[in-house]
Amino acid sequence: MQHPIYEVIFGRRDVRRFRSEPIPDPVLYHLLLAAHHGPSVGFMQPWNFIVVRDPQVKAQVKRAFQEENARAARHHRGQRRVLYDSLKLEGILEAPINLCVTCDRSRFGPHVLGRNSMPETDLFSTCCAIQNLWLAAYAEGIGVGWVSILQVDQLRRVLRIPRRIVPVAYLCIGYPEAFLPKPELELVGWAPRLSLNGLIFADQWGRRDETIATCAGGCGESDSPHPPWKGA
Amino acid sequence: MQHPIYEVIFGRRDVRRFRSEPIPDPVLYHLLLAAHHGPSVGFMQPWNFIVVRDPQVKAQVKRAFQEENARAARHHRGQRRVLYDSLKLEGILEAPINLCVTCDRSRFGPHVLGRNSMPETDLFSTCCAIQNLWLAAYAEGIGVGWVSILQVDQLRRVLRIPRRIVPVAYLCIGYPEAFLPKPELELVGWAPRLSLNGLIFADQWGRRDETIATCAGGCGESDSPHPPWKGA
Repeated sequence: MQHPIYEVIFGRRDVRRFRSEPIPDPVLYHLLLAAHHGPSVGFMQPWNFIVVRDPQVKAQVKRAFQEENARAARHHRGQRRVLYDSLKLEGILEAPINLCVTCDRSRFGPHVLGRNSMPETDLFSTCCAIQNLWLAAYAEGIGVGWVSILQVDQLRRVLRIPRRIVPVAYLCIGYPEAFLPKPELELVGWAPRLSLNGLIFADQWGRRDETIATCAGGCGESDSPHPPWKGA
Repeated sequence: MQHPIYEVIFGRRDVRRFRSEPIPDPVLYHLLLAAHHGPSVGFMQPWNFIVVRDPQVKAQVKRAFQEENARAARHHRGQRRVLYDSLKLEGILEAPINLCVTCDRSRFGPHVLGRNSMPETDLFSTCCAIQNLWLAAYAEGIGVGWVSILQVDQLRRVLRIPRRIVPVAYLCIGYPEAFLPKPELELVGWAPRLSLNGLIFADQWGRRDETIATCAGGCGESDSPHPPWKGA
């Protein structure tokens, strides 16, 4: 139960505030190697990694973010809008590395083993690779922030990505000012942490799993991000 | 560089051959807790977990797999078809736990922070949660296999999942016969491991990143799944 991976999984954060120290190239290479060893449907490895260091490219992405964020903010009203406007939602310029992770849906031809009936599984594979990188980064003391307030076609234009390639994620990567004790959106009251028990069903949708439910309390385990062994 | 997460990331496999020992409930609970602490767009936590133990439900999913696999196999010809037919692509009946991980795209209302311009980010969050579970399982000595040769609507019918909910993954979970030294599709020659260097670009699509490229050899690091510190 005490494998250090739990500390990484529970401690990982979406980071938007970065220090300026560069990431050593061998460390960055290892983060990419971690991503490259993600699972992929039919061993398709559909990902590419565009490492963005050029301040001019970052500035173009930042402008694309600002335009899209102005549109997105309009969906929120009143106090919620005030809170939205107070949030820092990206660290594009400050982060020493930006990384666009893409998915080449045509890699290894049209008939990829395991993708016929669930065509999105290549995108899903790319996300699993991203999570590998995110966790490895945390283990290295490095923060990652996923910027999704961007138009995909704007990203394609700025990074000259062909139309057949899907930009799945635009990540900001660098040493963080801090890893917060909880997700920032939870801390500021934007959304609550859901109870895990309420999300688990047995054998079919909507049927409460009584076996597992007892584990939250009865098995000496907690529903919290800080499992009991951490305080022992 | 030697954080144990790399051993987990490089050693994790898609497992299709399981031993029959049950997974203790507290361990399963921790795997789900690991998933629940995945990143999510707007802290949406869009996932649910349907834990399938009922042999009759498993049998229905197995039949759905067999029907879909018969269709999928037709896309391959000659020696490739012989190889395809020789592959074991699921462990639905043998794995003590099957787990359907779903995405509720309507959770927390229509305007989720960060999802406006990239609507698939809720599905992507669910995949990051799945990768958390996959890695935690490996750290516990537990194998996970993702079965994607299924029709989504069949899964919905068997597990009584409402139409608005997306079944993202159907996982088989149990103690494995073995963790293979490489992905099985690589070992049997279905597809090769791609060179990481060829997948990395600098500042724009297609521009080789010379800085990083030197790390594969020059920084004392390897492009292999078994990094040098493992043998040290």
